[in-house]
Amino acid sequence: MSVRNWTAADAVHLPYGRVRDERGRDIAGVRLGGDVVDLATFLDGGVLADLFTAGRLEPFLEAGPQVWADVRGALLDAARSGADERLEESTRPLAGATELMPFEVADYVDFYASRDHASNIGRILRPDGAPLSANWEHMPIGYHGRAGTVVVSGTPITRPSGQTKNADGSIAFGPSGRLDFEAEVGFVVGVGSSLGTGVAVANFRSHVFGACLLNDWSARDIQAWEYVPLGPFLGKSFATSIAAWITPLDALDAAWVRSPTRNQPLQSYLDDDGRTDALDIQLTVEINGTVVSSPPFASMYWTPAQMLAHMTVNGASLRIGDLYGSGTVSGAQPDQCGSLMELSSNGQLPVMTGKGPRAFLADGDTVVMRATAPSPAGRINLAEVNGQIVGH
Amino acid sequence: MSVRNWTAADAVHLPYGRVRDERGRDIAGVRLGGDVVDLATFLDGGVLADLFTAGRLEPFLEAGPQVWADVRGALLDAARSGADERLEESTRPLAGATELMPFEVADYVDFYASRDHASNIGRILRPDGAPLSANWEHMPIGYHGRAGTVVVSGTPITRPSGQTKNADGSIAFGPSGRLDFEAEVGFVVGVGSSLGTGVAVANFRSHVFGACLLNDWSARDIQAWEYVPLGPFLGKSFATSIAAWITPLDALDAAWVRSPTRNQPLQSYLDDDGRTDALDIQLTVEINGTVVSSPPFASMYWTPAQMLAHMTVNGASLRIGDLYGSGTVSGAQPDQCGSLMELSSNGQLPVMTGKGPRAFLADGDTVVMRATAPSPAGRINLAEVNGQIVGH
Repeated sequence: MSVRNWTAADAVHLPYGRVRDERGRDIAGVRLGGDVVDLATFLDGGVLADLFTAGRLEPFLEAGPQVWADVRGALLDAARSGADERLEESTRPLAGATELMPFEVADYVDFYASRDHASNIGRILRPDGAPLSANWEHMPIGYHGRAGTVVVSGTPITRPSGQTKNADGSIAFGPSGRLDFEAEVGFVVGVGSSLGTGVAVANFRSHVFGACLLNDWSARDIQAWEYVPLGPFLGKSFATSIAAWITPLDALDAAWVRSPTRNQPLQSYLDDDGRTDALDIQLTVEINGTVVSSPPFASMYWTPAQMLAHMTVNGASLRIGDLYGSGTVSGAQPDQCGSLMELSSNGQLPVMTGKGPRAFLADGDTVVMRATAPSPAGRINLAEVNGQIVGH
Repeated sequence: MSVRNWTAADAVHLPYGRVRDERGRDIAGVRLGGDVVDLATFLDGGVLADLFTAGRLEPFLEAGPQVWADVRGALLDAARSGADERLEESTRPLAGATELMPFEVADYVDFYASRDHASNIGRILRPDGAPLSANWEHMPIGYHGRAGTVVVSGTPITRPSGQTKNADGSIAFGPSGRLDFEAEVGFVVGVGSSLGTGVAVANFRSHVFGACLLNDWSARDIQAWEYVPLGPFLGKSFATSIAAWITPLDALDAAWVRSPTRNQPLQSYLDDDGRTDALDIQLTVEINGTVVSSPPFASMYWTPAQMLAHMTVNGASLRIGDLYGSGTVSGAQPDQCGSLMELSSNGQLPVMTGKGPRAFLADGDTVVMRATAPSPAGRINLAEVNGQIVGH
């Protein structure tokens, strides 16, 4: 029997992803601590194996909640038994394999669901106005991002160039001087929906398969000059990183907590009074090896189910592979902010990192986001998302 | 010999699309007036036939400019000969076939490239401010839209519901009362590009395959309440219609005209001084059979090549199937506006249609956009985009 490369928490986490093995073969698998389970091999002979033989996760994501539960149940049983032959045969060390994009992103939407983050940004950008726009407490504000530039954790991030406006009003062009991260949680749609129909808050789990950490890289100087009146564009579209492993919602059963108290009465399609639709996921952000922030996802004003209901209430359809981000996760405390713009007070108070103080990101800097969530076997570690900045 | 169902202009237009035939088979084809040429059959035996046998256009779009020219050359020769056996064998009446989405949209970006349109909207929304935002003459302003809700011409458009703000400041929810169209020209990317590199203005035709009419349906009341600070979202994402047939840029060789004079010096990546990068495409918009507007695409301030250069200058990559819209095409004259919001002065002066006056669109209304462009054989008719509003 091989040496086990995983803990009890790893054995109930079981996130999904894809790797390319040393022979160049793409494998759809589940991470078990430092190992990966080849799902086509693990399920070989059963009807569910066909979902994974192409080395993609899409057929499985599309199959829906019952199949998600069946595959997970088989894995949980095998890991629990302690000596499952099929599991041992299909498991190999993750080291040596290359992590791939877990799925092809269909549409990518980014929300703005943290009240603390939106207020912090409002105070920085509009010091003389109200920190929140008039609509903010009535709906989860969001916009579409670029699906084609969502990349897997570990992909180097090239510093973007673009137009910026100088203090004297003149226009410049060059590499961004205010490159930032945004710590977010992303949600992955498995089951689509029809054009012309919305998805109710209560039907969230019929469509959304899982969650992953997401870094919405942002060039603040490009964004500031371009975003009026149609919103962020090139300041965001150069890259968005997601973790290589998607945590199924079924692994987060112990993480649901009460939705926050609402400051405004909500339209019925957003109403979640009395529901436990918020998620206790605790994030940390490291720059060059130093933890600079610990954002609490449980503090988000809008829940993932509300974001999905809002995104579809106009009849917009969902497709397999749709991804939506929560927006920057920031808590109420200064060391809980999910972006450098907030942590450094818009660049005025540099933050200490493992390579010295930073107002914004320098070439060569590495940003790593990690997260944990409660489970019956202790806290699970969601897959990290990391990226290093490369000069232009 | 069969009766010809096409004109000399049709025989040089030759736009690409997909149809489902009466036996349920998907065919990648070229429209020849009232007929469709089955490309896999037409090219049977040649190396290019394989590009079309799956009934999809993507392999052809991805193949690039030389292949685009080769296939078009073979079709032009056959149509010119007057009695090409292979062409006759592979041609069938379009009537009876169902037009499909010509390609799967990867990312969808919408620009705002008409100075007249942006000024008209600015005057309506911000009567006390400058009609154009400070950045408008420095860059083609754009944002990402929802790729998954781009639908083919003829698809019914369900009136979206959403939040709106009443005049007294209270919030309402219900079907949009200010549903509008936007007449645009869309551009279809065939050849992708690498992450981290931009596409120069001069390389536009190495990547973009063709153009099509596009209707960016817009719910003005939903949009007005949601769009600050991150831009349009649900007011647009319920549906965008495109024509069923993509006009190759090679069919528009006679339509290029001088780029407009610039009011501001441009950054070098946008410079097109002395180039003929504007396109003389003449649009018309009909509501319920009555022409309500004739927008001139040649009057756009930003060219399609500048939009592409801007979209990628931050290093964002292109993928096969990326679609970008020009933004509403409006000319300087009142009867050249590309939206009802402009034509009706924000609903105050209803426009006469075939079913009576309209401030905004009513259930059952049909909007049809048509366009022509010059060619050596007279003006070609771009494929129309039409849609009928269905009540919620």
